[in-house]
Amino acid sequence: MPLISTGISGFDESVGGLPDRSVILLLGGTGTGTDLFAQQFLFNSAKKGSRIIYITIEKPPNDVREELASLGMNIAPLESLKPPRWLFIDAFTPRRAQRQASVSLLTTLTDELTQKIENSYTVIDSISYLLLRYDIVDVMDGIELLLHLSRDKGGIHFLIMNPYMHDRKTVHTILHIVDGALEFQAEERGQTYLRSLSLRKMKKASHKMRIVAFRLTEKGIVFESETRVA
Amino acid sequence: MPLISTGISGFDESVGGLPDRSVILLLGGTGTGTDLFAQQFLFNSAKKGSRIIYITIEKPPNDVREELASLGMNIAPLESLKPPRWLFIDAFTPRRAQRQASVSLLTTLTDELTQKIENSYTVIDSISYLLLRYDIVDVMDGIELLLHLSRDKGGIHFLIMNPYMHDRKTVHTILHIVDGALEFQAEERGQTYLRSLSLRKMKKASHKMRIVAFRLTEKGIVFESETRVA
Amino acid sequence: MPLISTGISGFDESVGGLPDRSVILLLGGTGTGTDLFAQQFLFNSAKKGSRIIYITIEKPPNDVREELASLGMNIAPLESLKPPRWLFIDAFTPRRAQRQASVSLLTTLTDELTQKIENSYTVIDSISYLLLRYDIVDVMDGIELLLHLSRDKGGIHFLIMNPYMHDRKTVHTILHIVDGALEFQAEERGQTYLRSLSLRKMKKASHKMRIVAFRLTEKGIVFESETRVA
Amino acid sequence: MPLISTGISGFDESVGGLPDRSVILLLGGTGTGTDLFAQQFLFNSAKKGSRIIYITIEKPPNDVREELASLGMNIAPLESLKPPRWLFIDAFTPRRAQRQASVSLLTTLTDELTQKIENSYTVIDSISYLLLRYDIVDVMDGIELLLHLSRDKGGIHFLIMNPYMHDRKTVHTILHIVDGALEFQAEERGQTYLRSLSLRKMKKASHKMRIVAFRLTEKGIVFESETRVA
Amino acid sequence: MPLISTGISGFDESVGGLPDRSVILLLGGTGTGTDLFAQQFLFNSAKKGSRIIYITIEKPPNDVREELASLGMNIAPLESLKPPRWLFIDAFTPRRAQRQASVSLLTTLTDELTQKIENSYTVIDSISYLLLRYDIVDVMDGIELLLHLSRDKGGIHFLIMNPYMHDRKTVHTILHIVDGALEFQAEERGQTYLRSLSLRKMKKASHKMRIVAFRLTEKGIVFESETRVA
Amino acid sequence: MPLISTGISGFDESVGGLPDRSVILLLGGTGTGTDLFAQQFLFNSAKKGSRIIYITIEKPPNDVREELASLGMNIAPLESLKPPRWLFIDAFTPRRAQRQASVSLLTTLTDELTQKIENSYTVIDSISYLLLRYDIVDVMDGIELLLHLSRDKGGIHFLIMNPYMHDRKTVHTILHIVDGALEFQAEERGQTYLRSLSLRKMKKASHKMRIVAFRLTEKGIVFESETRVA
Repeated sequence: MPLISTGISGFDESVGGLPDRSVILLLGGTGTGTDLFAQQFLFNSAKKGSRIIYITIEKPPNDVREELASLGMNIAPLESLKPPRWLFIDAFTPRRAQRQASVSLLTTLTDELTQKIENSYTVIDSISYLLLRYDIVDVMDGIELLLHLSRDKGGIHFLIMNPYMHDRKTVHTILHIVDGALEFQAEERGQTYLRSLSLRKMKKASHKMRIVAFRLTEKGIVFESETRVA
Repeated sequence: MPLISTGISGFDESVGGLPDRSVILLLGGTGTGTDLFAQQFLFNSAKKGSRIIYITIEKPPNDVREELASLGMNIAPLESLKPPRWLFIDAFTPRRAQRQASVSLLTTLTDELTQKIENSYTVIDSISYLLLRYDIVDVMDGIELLLHLSRDKGGIHFLIMNPYMHDRKTVHTILHIVDGALEFQAEERGQTYLRSLSLRKMKKASHKMRIVAFRLTEKGIVFESETRVA
Repeated sequence: MPLISTGISGFDESVGGLPDRSVILLLGGTGTGTDLFAQQFLFNSAKKGSRIIYITIEKPPNDVREELASLGMNIAPLESLKPPRWLFIDAFTPRRAQRQASVSLLTTLTDELTQKIENSYTVIDSISYLLLRYDIVDVMDGIELLLHLSRDKGGIHFLIMNPYMHDRKTVHTILHIVDGALEFQAEERGQTYLRSLSLRKMKKASHKMRIVAFRLTEKGIVFESETRVA
Repeated sequence: MPLISTGISGFDESVGGLPDRSVILLLGGTGTGTDLFAQQFLFNSAKKGSRIIYITIEKPPNDVREELASLGMNIAPLESLKPPRWLFIDAFTPRRAQRQASVSLLTTLTDELTQKIENSYTVIDSISYLLLRYDIVDVMDGIELLLHLSRDKGGIHFLIMNPYMHDRKTVHTILHIVDGALEFQAEERGQTYLRSLSLRKMKKASHKMRIVAFRLTEKGIVFESETRVA
Repeated sequence: MPLISTGISGFDESVGGLPDRSVILLLGGTGTGTDLFAQQFLFNSAKKGSRIIYITIEKPPNDVREELASLGMNIAPLESLKPPRWLFIDAFTPRRAQRQASVSLLTTLTDELTQKIENSYTVIDSISYLLLRYDIVDVMDGIELLLHLSRDKGGIHFLIMNPYMHDRKTVHTILHIVDGALEFQAEERGQTYLRSLSLRKMKKASHKMRIVAFRLTEKGIVFESETRVA
Repeated sequence: MPLISTGISGFDESVGGLPDRSVILLLGGTGTGTDLFAQQFLFNSAKKGSRIIYITIEKPPNDVREELASLGMNIAPLESLKPPRWLFIDAFTPRRAQRQASVSLLTTLTDELTQKIENSYTVIDSISYLLLRYDIVDVMDGIELLLHLSRDKGGIHFLIMNPYMHDRKTVHTILHIVDGALEFQAEERGQTYLRSLSLRKMKKASHKMRIVAFRLTEKGIVFESETRVA
């Protein structure tokens, strides 16, 4: 059962990649790198030919484009291919006109995903926003649909979640139903932060769970396979 | 009063097996090995001739088949016997069509168990899902029925529960009514996890309660009877 | 004012027995020995001629018979005397037919106790179940009735309670209204548990409050008067 | 402004007595000695000629008589004087017939106190029971009435309260409105308890706040003025 | 921008006084000296010619007179001047007839203050009582009115608050809207209390925030500018 | 992508400025310097020619003028320019007449901002007040509008928030949706406070997150680039 390479420096060497046909939770507080990890993985995968669906709920696609560009990742050529190799679903900008979240956002998203997910890698940035606006049982039903789709259509599907925006039980409930989970942490250490990633859960690979240190650089996340976490 | 051997490496030597005619809670967070323990025990028991009923609520039977296969346990021959030695009750897939949990899931499950449990070993994976969707008093009534059935029909019956998805009182209430409870824990230790199992409760064997260390390997759970827990 | 001997090895030497005409709370988590303490005390008292009423709410009488037998206590001869020296009130089995707790369970129990309690030692196993299903104020009214009965009819009356199933205020409220309270604790220590009992409260004997260590053996609870609690 | 002697061994030497015309809170968990302190003070005051009103809410007057007797305090001669020097208001026994707390208990108590409090020392054992059955704002109104009465009629008036039966805000609210407060604590220390009393608040004597150690003996509370609290 | 001297021994030397035209929160638990601080400041200010308005909500004015007298502060001459230099607004005694807090207390208080506050120093003893009986948003509106009045009419206006009677958010909300805040703390240290005052907030003087130790003596609060905290 | 200089001593050297077209959260408890930071930045920017909009919700504009003046910042010349370089939106004073917050405050603010924000730097002092009076989902919609405006019209827009006035989830939710966040902390250290600022989040500059110490002086905030924290 081969794992899919992330192309992120040092990660594949430490962890061995991520399993196909799975829903992976990226769990971490503000500024810990959850979104960066997803963006780097997706950009590397797109360059190798995969189709990307990026669902952005809390900021406009252009903010994501700028974040990517600031780390040297230019997605314009990928977006302009026919059909596009990189596709944004913009769930942010439409709210401006309405001045509130559409009651049908969750339904719309699950419908769009169902239609377009074939052969794609996706990210929902963020599941936290959905948990804030919808009942957890409805969000869980949406994730269950994604689990079904991943089994039928393949691909790796990221959910970005900020654990501090939710109570402990909500975090563990989402953690419980996904196929894998990576937790990003930043601990104050003198004038800077010590960063680490924990493999909290991995489908068919529980025995591989471990903790690895990483740095945020101007090129993005770099894992330090030789560095020990205190 | 003989205990039933689990066939799990090192467990029977440390703990002496599990008592027949009992409902056993497997308590542990994501990735701690609760499901692995049940799967290994059930596979070993099936090979020795026991009938298995595997109630899967949060993933399709095929995911369980793949997890078992990835650890070298092939259940296809057991499933194809007439009558089957290994039987899945799939409480996950039917939800796809409905896009929500059937209000009658709990009733359906207790009815099915009542009919089929004769001479069987069973697992409910997971009781946490049921606690999320139903009132605790209704879930307790379901567990009480299982306690009654275990006295009448024999067998060992596992409930898998993630304690972090519930409040403290709910966990202790379930712990209070079952016949036995094993708690699986994983503690960060450097770049990896130190794993241990505590016998929290055991019918007619309170004096045997102890804590044992184990490892997750690519062959599943291996208890290290010679290893000390710090 | 003589105290009543428990017949439990080492307890009377350390603590001096329990006062007649009192309601005693046995407080402890799963597997800490609260039920064992009550069972040993009641069996010893029955052998010396006292009448026992054992109210079992969460398991059938037969489970209790087996637990007692596994520790070498055979109650069959006591049950077969006319009138019986050991009487079960089974509040568990009737629920099977109904699939839910009778709304009148609490009333039934207090009525039965009122009729039968003359000259008896009793145990309610457990008060936690009642607190889960009924309002605390109704359970308190039931305990107040038992306090009245203990003054009129004599005897020692145990309430078994798992503190982790309730909030802190509920535990302290029950603790506040009973005549005495013993708290059983088990603390992880290496691969096993260090057990201790605290006299939290004792009618007319506040100055005797202390903490004693004990072991769970295959003969039941054994107090170690010579052992220090760390 | 003279303080009134308590007659409790070592207390007056350490603390100097309690101020007349005041409402004093005795705060402490189960078995810490709050009721003993009140009983010793009242018995000593009665012997010196004061009238006592003992409001018992959670146990019958006879239980209090026995507790006093077990510590060598015989109140029978005081009860039989005309008019009685020691008067029980029994708010416990009447509940037996009713099987529930009278809705008018609080009103009845405040009416009785208003009529009988002239020249009396009183105790309400306990205010915790009232807080459990009535709204805090109603209990506060009752305490305010007692504050008014203490100014008009003199005397020292104790409220016994178990802080663990209430939330932090309720405890601090009662503490906030009384004239003085003594907190009784028991800390596990090896096989026994280290006991101490803190003067949390004292009308016109804030600068005297301190902490003193005491022991519970078979003669009741004994303060050890020479003993240091850790 | 001159600060106003408090006349409290050692305070002005350490802190430099309090700013005119401000609302100052005095925050502290039972027995920590919040009321003493206000009383000493107001008495010193009255002697220098300021008008005082003392709003007493939880005890009768006479209790305050006695507290002041016990510390050697005699306000009778100040009360008897025409117009009075020291004026009590008694919000306690009227409640006796009513047996409950007037629904219009808050409105009455804000109306009275609006009429009489010209050139006055005031204290509301305590804001905690108001927060217990009224919605926080209504109390905040009352404090906002006081902020407006302080800007128009001058003076220093104290709010006494017991933080333990409220939840953390309520405390920080009041702290957030006032002009300055002094927090009084008492920490157990052997048989006595170590007392300290923190300048949590001060209008136009954030850079002066510090912590100072003090003692409660029979003359009231004495700051020990030479004493180190911890 | 150039960062905008704050003109605050030592800050630009340590951190490099703040990104244009962004919404920045200033997070800190009472007296930690959040408002000072905004005021210094805005005053420095106004002197260099930027337009300032200062939305004051909890105090009148004159209080802010006095605070600025006490630190040597005179905004009168900026206010008197045509059109004004420094504009107050006073959301405090109008409440005096109404004695309560207008139900339409939030709508009014967002409307005013939409009209006037072109080429401006703004501050909302404070977002905490809005969170207290309005539903979090409505406040989030307001912040989303500000995010849209910042993208269209440019400028840096501060939100001041006191984390202790809200629950943990509310704080992290606001933190989650803004572009950048600076957290101000003050820790008791002997008789004074040790102050530090953490860059919790920064748009397109996650790798620059760090912690720096600062002092509050009579000239305002001064960063100590040479000082180590902890």
